[in-house]
Amino acid sequence: MKKELNIGDSAEIEKQFSQEEVNAYTKSSNDTNPIHYDKNYAGQTFFKEPIVPGLLVASLFGGLLGTHLPGQGTIHLGQDLNFKAPIYIDEKVKAEIKIIQIREDKPIITFSSVCIKENGETAITGKSVVYYKGTFFK
Amino acid sequence: MKKELNIGDSAEIEKQFSQEEVNAYTKSSNDTNPIHYDKNYAGQTFFKEPIVPGLLVASLFGGLLGTHLPGQGTIHLGQDLNFKAPIYIDEKVKAEIKIIQIREDKPIITFSSVCIKENGETAITGKSVVYYKGTFFK
Repeated sequence: MKKELNIGDSAEIEKQFSQEEVNAYTKSSNDTNPIHYDKNYAGQTFFKEPIVPGLLVASLFGGLLGTHLPGQGTIHLGQDLNFKAPIYIDEKVKAEIKIIQIREDKPIITFSSVCIKENGETAITGKSVVYYKGTFFK
Repeated sequence: MKKELNIGDSAEIEKQFSQEEVNAYTKSSNDTNPIHYDKNYAGQTFFKEPIVPGLLVASLFGGLLGTHLPGQGTIHLGQDLNFKAPIYIDEKVKAEIKIIQIREDKPIITFSSVCIKENGETAITGKSVVYYKGTFFK
């Protein structure tokens, strides 16, 4: 069954990343940078507090694309990301994807992908490009 | 202490993502897509086997930037990613970053960021942009 997709269709999710989730991620990516867990170190930087890796925050886009819009069968082809503001451990953030282009010659769809902090500040801007033919079952 | 950086400087890391690591990541990003864990489902797709989320593989770039080159004090400003080929659970992949541009007016550095599979296939191409002033201690 092919899902109908239109310019402007959007999906969003709210999330707070815990220190435990950040630790699991940084361990898996061999990222020992203390800015992600050490309050004393972070306190000496202009971030002041430990921050969530930007690429971990961007994982929310992958989740939205693969499970909500378009959903299962989506193939993530590309992702551009601009990290505009830090997101702190346990800080609430909203990730939103919105369709901005649907190619007519191929089943390739471009989304804007944005993360907004609870204080209204934009933390991440970017674009996601996916291939989606409905399902990719044989 | 300011680290000297030159065009062509590079850093790399090899990694295999386990199912456990993928599960921790997809749980944290609310990504319930069975393509990342369900062998029966994946077997019906042209991927044949469960695949690691592309953005999780790209986490290796963040780890390299923040801990190796330039290292602590690096601020990740931007990341472009093109997902060229799937990376399977437990498949060995090599991530490499290489300096391709150093701005003269600002401490902003651009890296190529590439992931290569053990069979030689390119899985991810992209660019990382960082701000690096040596350290960002006050």
